[in-house]
Amino acid sequence: MVATLPKLEVCLSPALLHLYNTQGAVVVIIDVFRATSTIAAALHNGAKCVIPVADVQECINLGMQIPNSITAGERDGKVADGLQYGNSPSEYPRAFVENKTLVLTTTNGTRLLHMVQDADTIITGSFLNLSAVCNFLIQQNKPVLLGCAAWKDRFNLEDTLFAGAVVSRIKEYFSINCDSARAANYLYEHAKESTFIDFLRDSSHYKRLSAYGLSYDMEYCATPDLHPVVPILRGRELIVHT
Amino acid sequence: MVATLPKLEVCLSPALLHLYNTQGAVVVIIDVFRATSTIAAALHNGAKCVIPVADVQECINLGMQIPNSITAGERDGKVADGLQYGNSPSEYPRAFVENKTLVLTTTNGTRLLHMVQDADTIITGSFLNLSAVCNFLIQQNKPVLLGCAAWKDRFNLEDTLFAGAVVSRIKEYFSINCDSARAANYLYEHAKESTFIDFLRDSSHYKRLSAYGLSYDMEYCATPDLHPVVPILRGRELIVHT
Repeated sequence: MVATLPKLEVCLSPALLHLYNTQGAVVVIIDVFRATSTIAAALHNGAKCVIPVADVQECINLGMQIPNSITAGERDGKVADGLQYGNSPSEYPRAFVENKTLVLTTTNGTRLLHMVQDADTIITGSFLNLSAVCNFLIQQNKPVLLGCAAWKDRFNLEDTLFAGAVVSRIKEYFSINCDSARAANYLYEHAKESTFIDFLRDSSHYKRLSAYGLSYDMEYCATPDLHPVVPILRGRELIVHT
Repeated sequence: MVATLPKLEVCLSPALLHLYNTQGAVVVIIDVFRATSTIAAALHNGAKCVIPVADVQECINLGMQIPNSITAGERDGKVADGLQYGNSPSEYPRAFVENKTLVLTTTNGTRLLHMVQDADTIITGSFLNLSAVCNFLIQQNKPVLLGCAAWKDRFNLEDTLFAGAVVSRIKEYFSINCDSARAANYLYEHAKESTFIDFLRDSSHYKRLSAYGLSYDMEYCATPDLHPVVPILRGRELIVHT
């Protein structure tokens, strides 16, 4: 019976994506600090959709074309020139974002999302929608690749910790023979005695973003299940899976 | 004072090597199952040197050119056609290997070793020479990159666990702002309650090699400090650092 379970694997960096077969798989794009956290928050608070784009100019252009849209994105911890808003999940309350299209430019998460070409389904994951993602993956009963967006292709703790949290919760439903998945699971088991954020304070990304005054953002991003939706890619748009 | 400590980083796969600056660094090539374990065993047991080569034909050619040499290497768990011996560290006792040149072809470890072009120093590491490697790195007082050979570019547990053991032992002597190093250290801290081999039994490579009947080899490879030498690259030869 075990052999019939779908496969679950973890890809630790976009630079390793070519090693995995994503055809027919459900791919979870993970960019905890902060793209996929912001996506969960905006969609849970009623945004019509989120359109992830690779660069600032494309973001500006789409913002001009799409009625009732918001352009957002940061570079070096500040709202990028020409855009309206930043990349903080707490910046998108319902009163502001409801029924709007959020055109969001991020570097690592968007790049990975666009690299995956032949998946059955692409969703985004973060601690803010951890349980929703896990339930979705169990329901789908298809091969899963948890794709960490990393930082400029470098392994990072926060995305891997989230992958480990998913592995830990759904591993009985999948066949796992992937050392990255095992390591992510061990990392999660090691961390869970503390809260996620206490663990992540000793990470490269936390140090970089806290230097920009964004510690609160990261505490927000590390809170499980604040925004229990499954953002799913349809064409170029991420919408709430229903 | 902390800022003056040399940097220590961990590279989890040859496919990520380009993200690291190896110029002027001491690079440790790690291929625990089994290339760098066999290298430590052969050199500790008196081999004159080990010449790592990428393919079987090159191995055969060098074996014919070099007096008193042994050609060795495996493919799919068996001695490769045209070579004399395999890739088991226990296959090279002193009575057999003393004063001989071991020409060894392996895939992952040799490939990574040849990819590193501009390092100050290249050594090889495995549990068999864990303490010797750590002492060497502390003495050198230069930037360190721990390079995991991985498996066909895929992250593996055994090389990362060894990197974590090194990080755990020498971290006070280095400046570490590398999430891969942090994760390797956590993995090691998680594992050390059991023995290394108990931890590694749940790894892709253990499962693959044990299917070839090589479980004993892996237990041997997981034994700390059986062969306390530092293999160092001089030209194309790995010799014992003295």
